Amino acid sequence: MAAFGARIDSLARGRAVLSMPITAAVGQQHGFAHAGASFALGDSAAGYAALGLMEDGAEVLTVEMKINLVAPAAGMRLVAEGEVVRAGRRLTVVRATVLAVDAEGRRRDVALLQGTMIPA
Amino acid sequence: MAAFGARIDSLARGRAVLSMPITAAVGQQHGFAHAGASFALGDSAAGYAALGLMEDGAEVLTVEMKINLVAPAAGMRLVAEGEVVRAGRRLTVVRATVLAVDAEGRRRDVALLQGTMIPA
Amino acid sequence: MAAFGARIDSLARGRAVLSMPITAAVGQQHGFAHAGASFALGDSAAGYAALGLMEDGAEVLTVEMKINLVAPAAGMRLVAEGEVVRAGRRLTVVRATVLAVDAEGRRRDVALLQGTMIPA
Amino acid sequence: MAAFGARIDSLARGRAVLSMPITAAVGQQHGFAHAGASFALGDSAAGYAALGLMEDGAEVLTVEMKINLVAPAAGMRLVAEGEVVRAGRRLTVVRATVLAVDAEGRRRDVALLQGTMIPA
Repeated sequence: MAAFGARIDSLARGRAVLSMPITAAVGQQHGFAHAGASFALGDSAAGYAALGLMEDGAEVLTVEMKINLVAPAAGMRLVAEGEVVRAGRRLTVVRATVLAVDAEGRRRDVALLQGTMIPA
Repeated sequence: MAAFGARIDSLARGRAVLSMPITAAVGQQHGFAHAGASFALGDSAAGYAALGLMEDGAEVLTVEMKINLVAPAAGMRLVAEGEVVRAGRRLTVVRATVLAVDAEGRRRDVALLQGTMIPA
Repeated sequence: MAAFGARIDSLARGRAVLSMPITAAVGQQHGFAHAGASFALGDSAAGYAALGLMEDGAEVLTVEMKINLVAPAAGMRLVAEGEVVRAGRRLTVVRATVLAVDAEGRRRDVALLQGTMIPA
Repeated sequence: MAAFGARIDSLARGRAVLSMPITAAVGQQHGFAHAGASFALGDSAAGYAALGLMEDGAEVLTVEMKINLVAPAAGMRLVAEGEVVRAGRRLTVVRATVLAVDAEGRRRDVALLQGTMIPA
């Protein structure tokens, strides 16, 4: 995600916040491309949230992820808040909310994700 | 997707094939980033497949999309085959398969997507 | 759902709680049948939550629904809490949590749902 | 599922077909209840398909399942065709198609499922 200027804003046990600028690089073409940017940021936030509950040096893989897109990703920055909703022995269930923040700091939900992570 | 070297390999009524090189830009970090690349290519292939059944000048939006990741995106190119499985009056249901192709041309399923598109 | 003894425990704008007894009728066989009961109750709670934001006499249909099963549905009653997370002009995005309640009143998350409803 | 008159029509390695009558017991109320019947039959077909690739005596659990509902479940019988699309060491990815069959034997797709099974 570094190529898109994504950064980690906060990390805690079972929670992570990532953000990146909304630029042409993640812009949309024919209306559907933005799904990819929202997915990537939300999935990464969910992955970091899951990592935060594992041992040092662990890695996680996305098993599956569902995204519902609820508004256009318009504004200055995309912010993704990931959280672990169920840390199991084998599988970890995660959710993430992706928000767009405009120049005045107003936040609007853009996408909701729900999926499963597994230790790599 | 152009920034990643993605291209349209074929377009037909209700079907589309897209591909892009597997490079560091879409590579993975901590194991989960590749989900974003597979999602973006698969979602785009599904979107073009849906577009192919609409009037000229139409655009589509992803309402929701689910991805199951079944193998690492390792190899030279990612290929996504999108298809419309149900074109409804209001909503279009799509599926896509993402494959990784290695230097010898061997293909391996990487991800399976199922979701909903809507006219923009 | 009436055949399973399901009842509406509460209805509010954009929220609904349903419950039903856990009995042999919704029990599991080969381990996977309980998914159906949790899905049906969660989907119904989400549907009633969506209905609560529509005009009198409206009906809703499930467009798509994703369920993550996080624990066995063991106990006395299944309770599903549905909520609208985004009421759009054409589509409504919903979530539901299904919990199992044991004889001592302890509650445990069983399943998480996220999906889309549309006016019928 | 036996309580609904569900039966196994065929079982093979990685494939299973189940069916049940469409009756008041699985009928819909407020438009959304049929999702539960289609889900339960499709999920069961997918589960039996996964079981068919496992050792005798194994059981499977649904980790997560996504359903897209594409037409009303109207007719005489519901038929669900489940298949394994990827049998992994830890996780098995499955798909199912649910069809409604009318009195003249005409078949119509009702729902498409995609999800993950795990050995119990």
